[in-house]
Amino acid sequence: MERNVTVGIAQLGPIAREENRQQVISRMIALLNKAKQRDCGFVVFPELALTTFFPRWYLEDENELNAFYEKSMPSDETQALFDKAAELGIGFYLGYAELAEENGETRRFNTSILVDDKGQIVGKYRKIHLPGHTEHEPWRAFQHLEKRYFEVGNLGFGTWDFMGGKVGMALCNDRRWPETYRVMALQGAEMIVLGYNTPMHYPQAPEHDHLQAFHNHVVMQASAYQNGCWVLACAKAGKEEDCDLLGQSCIIAPTGEIVAQASTLGDELIVADCDFERTREIKENIFNFNLHRIPEEYEIISRPKKSQAGK
Amino acid sequence: MERNVTVGIAQLGPIAREENRQQVISRMIALLNKAKQRDCGFVVFPELALTTFFPRWYLEDENELNAFYEKSMPSDETQALFDKAAELGIGFYLGYAELAEENGETRRFNTSILVDDKGQIVGKYRKIHLPGHTEHEPWRAFQHLEKRYFEVGNLGFGTWDFMGGKVGMALCNDRRWPETYRVMALQGAEMIVLGYNTPMHYPQAPEHDHLQAFHNHVVMQASAYQNGCWVLACAKAGKEEDCDLLGQSCIIAPTGEIVAQASTLGDELIVADCDFERTREIKENIFNFNLHRIPEEYEIISRPKKSQAGK
Repeated sequence: MERNVTVGIAQLGPIAREENRQQVISRMIALLNKAKQRDCGFVVFPELALTTFFPRWYLEDENELNAFYEKSMPSDETQALFDKAAELGIGFYLGYAELAEENGETRRFNTSILVDDKGQIVGKYRKIHLPGHTEHEPWRAFQHLEKRYFEVGNLGFGTWDFMGGKVGMALCNDRRWPETYRVMALQGAEMIVLGYNTPMHYPQAPEHDHLQAFHNHVVMQASAYQNGCWVLACAKAGKEEDCDLLGQSCIIAPTGEIVAQASTLGDELIVADCDFERTREIKENIFNFNLHRIPEEYEIISRPKKSQAGK
Repeated sequence: MERNVTVGIAQLGPIAREENRQQVISRMIALLNKAKQRDCGFVVFPELALTTFFPRWYLEDENELNAFYEKSMPSDETQALFDKAAELGIGFYLGYAELAEENGETRRFNTSILVDDKGQIVGKYRKIHLPGHTEHEPWRAFQHLEKRYFEVGNLGFGTWDFMGGKVGMALCNDRRWPETYRVMALQGAEMIVLGYNTPMHYPQAPEHDHLQAFHNHVVMQASAYQNGCWVLACAKAGKEEDCDLLGQSCIIAPTGEIVAQASTLGDELIVADCDFERTREIKENIFNFNLHRIPEEYEIISRPKKSQAGK
């Protein structure tokens, strides 16, 4: 059985604070059209793809904050993206800020969805590894308030039968943590899809700023190989409201090799054929989990953290 | 407080099957002397450093097999290495095949030890992730019978206060598994030391042979960064009894950067200053485990494997 999907990574350049969803979606649709010309069956958009990366600001006005979230998906504003993708027969991954009403409570998540080639949402993920901080820290050149504006995702790391393979989702900072990939690979993931917004400047350790591109790739390449998975990674890139965001969107084979990479900081499509069967070269050999893992020795990894009271 | 150790990686070139321990140890002592000239306080030798890599042969004669193991450490044959290191005031890491008598049973482990600058053994590790196979597989160009000649280590992944920092040990294939580093980092490891014997040819997936050097480095660089640890990796390298072994011994900083790398396939010393305090740049920021890990989501990683009966 052939299990191959042609993937397009639809990197987005900067989105200005004042840019509205209609403007962003018209850029995304242009990339979808290009993806269709290049035979893509699946297109990956970034994390928080519909707006500027708003956690860089400390926002005290709740209405102003809420304007960055989606109250439904699709919505009147986002329906056009779903319609165009379905018309083209392309599935997609999309990251967005989610405002959910659950049990009468308003909850905020950094969310991604998998949408099939008929425009149906088939999977949802809510970001687990939230980076940054909770309180306003004026010493920083810009804020990174994901821990304020989102709660830790409550859906776990899942996998879905999608495009002929088993596909998992992650978001941005998740990609730095080896547990992210391992938890999905142990559920059979053959492809892990993620979007990111990564500032080039890291306020807490600016002496590492020049390593951002290296760190971005090294964690994903190692994890692709260690789990025998395709990794699809899509950036929001470029100078967005005075904050420089990393580009280097890429498609990584289960060998850890980068097989396609963006070379601009703007809207850019990169394409590669991803054969799910190639995961077997790794999963059945060097990283055959059944033969070689020793989970009895890993207990500390999932041991609950000590109470952080008093810290 | 200054917590800095100057480390030497003492890569060994091939060891012939007929080479005896005295010959090997004289090569190791030459590297110790060189390390002393370069101010090293700690020297790392490879996995199974005292003999040729014997798991490449299917050995039916138990006496022939046993000759590759150490019945005691130090022994009459290895005492000279301990004496020289103590005389020079250098601590070391050494890998060897261990034949242990425990509760009247003979047990075989792929073992490493940490020896302090007075020649005292302060830590022992027995390899947990044994690669290869158990039965003779004549189709292979060479065997990889670690699963036959060793049992899974029964000491866990430990850490030791050593040379001013917290140091953990691993061996060869352990370095490919992200759990190895994580289990030690969660115990506070600041430096992870390992030796390896890695054939350039991988019989099960020879189409990956050209990736051996990439895979060797990418897993260690990612893991150094993801755990904020120094990684010290020492190869046995070169053409050993018709089997080509990877070199590329290296010292990796907690940023994931390779700060020293061997460039031969023979006996070679590489040196770098390793400041334990530099682990804080990572451990207190991007990978602050207390702030950012979500162990509740990692349960599957340490879940016992299903019975493999019937497979």
